[in-house]
Amino acid sequence: MLDAHAEPWGIMRLPASGFVGAFDGVAAAWRATHPHAQAIACGMVGSAQGWVRAAYVPCPAGVDALAERLAAVPERGLHVVPGLTSAADPPDVMRGEETQIVGALALRPALSAASCVVLPGTHSKWARVVESNVVDFATFMTGELFAVLRDHSLLGRPARDAATTVDTATADDAFARGVRLAFDAAHGVAPLLFSARTAVLAERLDPAASLHYLSGLLVGDELRVGLARYGAPDALVGDPALCERYATALRTVDRPSVPVLDGAAPAGLWRVAECAGLVTDA
Amino acid sequence: MLDAHAEPWGIMRLPASGFVGAFDGVAAAWRATHPHAQAIACGMVGSAQGWVRAAYVPCPAGVDALAERLAAVPERGLHVVPGLTSAADPPDVMRGEETQIVGALALRPALSAASCVVLPGTHSKWARVVESNVVDFATFMTGELFAVLRDHSLLGRPARDAATTVDTATADDAFARGVRLAFDAAHGVAPLLFSARTAVLAERLDPAASLHYLSGLLVGDELRVGLARYGAPDALVGDPALCERYATALRTVDRPSVPVLDGAAPAGLWRVAECAGLVTDA
Repeated sequence: MLDAHAEPWGIMRLPASGFVGAFDGVAAAWRATHPHAQAIACGMVGSAQGWVRAAYVPCPAGVDALAERLAAVPERGLHVVPGLTSAADPPDVMRGEETQIVGALALRPALSAASCVVLPGTHSKWARVVESNVVDFATFMTGELFAVLRDHSLLGRPARDAATTVDTATADDAFARGVRLAFDAAHGVAPLLFSARTAVLAERLDPAASLHYLSGLLVGDELRVGLARYGAPDALVGDPALCERYATALRTVDRPSVPVLDGAAPAGLWRVAECAGLVTDA
Repeated sequence: MLDAHAEPWGIMRLPASGFVGAFDGVAAAWRATHPHAQAIACGMVGSAQGWVRAAYVPCPAGVDALAERLAAVPERGLHVVPGLTSAADPPDVMRGEETQIVGALALRPALSAASCVVLPGTHSKWARVVESNVVDFATFMTGELFAVLRDHSLLGRPARDAATTVDTATADDAFARGVRLAFDAAHGVAPLLFSARTAVLAERLDPAASLHYLSGLLVGDELRVGLARYGAPDALVGDPALCERYATALRTVDRPSVPVLDGAAPAGLWRVAECAGLVTDA
């Protein structure tokens, strides 16, 4: 790598100058010194609300299929990776994670033959990879569910009102209790959610730890369903702190430890760019 | 009934004059003409955030146990019905629904021997009644989950952005699809929630009907778990429009039709008051 530049922007948080301004804010200096360099991006920039609309490529699909369907913003030399759509009914979709999966296979080639790759996040993805293709995947809204329940439901109130903070051991214990309860709940998490409040009322849960317990319930439910449908994950991909939380949850339910892969997105963008012939010696 | 007076107040929406002002706004004129009349209330007015703290009575419990543990606001002649707590770990709780259940048994005595009473709402309750006692119950946060997802998540956006409204047949069809999908989902609703968005993206769901579909998913999940744990409901108790929605959902999954009981709360308050000796000829 020659240089790196990061901004906290996203499709919900663009600078006033919009996509053009965001791109130029990151890339204008590079383009001034390398006027023929090509650029590549993935994720919501290619959505209907994005800068240019990129396709959804149907599964099974790998890096070749993605490289063939790039969308373009010619005036900026920018190429945008398409998303993926599953064969389910209704079909599931991803945008951005397909590139992280390509990157994960590049970083760890042993995943290519047959593996389960999990990408924790606002909308967690569980993907099955066979012979370097994503053959199936499913979305769990774990992160968004947690955020809306924390910020807007009765379940967030004990922690919002708590006068004290919680020590790490108590927080970890509450998370593990939630994980185990939801993981063992044959019928799913719905009838357990209210316990994030009632356990506080019954003084069996520190109010300040109640969000860790709620987070454990939601992650435990995701693991229960994901493991039943996709088997044990072979890699956790994405934000390292969040992946470590999932790794902890897997250990809590006695599953083997799983490698955490960071930097999958740039690795995947590079692989797609290579495959599309965008990487030249110049 | 001699007279009735309703206000849209609740514990989250008190008049500036607080509990005293709310009570006097409703009852002052009655108390002026009947200075020795006793008053009775149930629900969150007896919670830690309420006017006077009423107990949680452990299950199994019926009208006698509730009548024995009334809390009081002596200066207003007011008695407050305690809530119930289940034997689960962590224990579940209710406040207000115990009184509606007592009222349902009074309105329909055939429920007293052995029945399943369902009270749809923000926090739906499924209760098992044996020999006029509530022996067990569970809470489903169906209504609150729907509200936070509608108002604060990505799933609410297609309907918020929809330029058109939806006709009743399309709305009912979307609700029924959601109910059936979630009811048949052995692993629970979590991996289905995202389909309220992806089905719109795939043009298999009218954006304006997407919240009806989401509501169907959540109600279908509640029915799946509730029926597995408590068997078929023998009565639906509470807001008639909401109960009719649950009755429709039960028909959608081929369950027999269920009576809807309205007016259970005043009937229950009267029964508790009778049992506590608060109802006199004077």
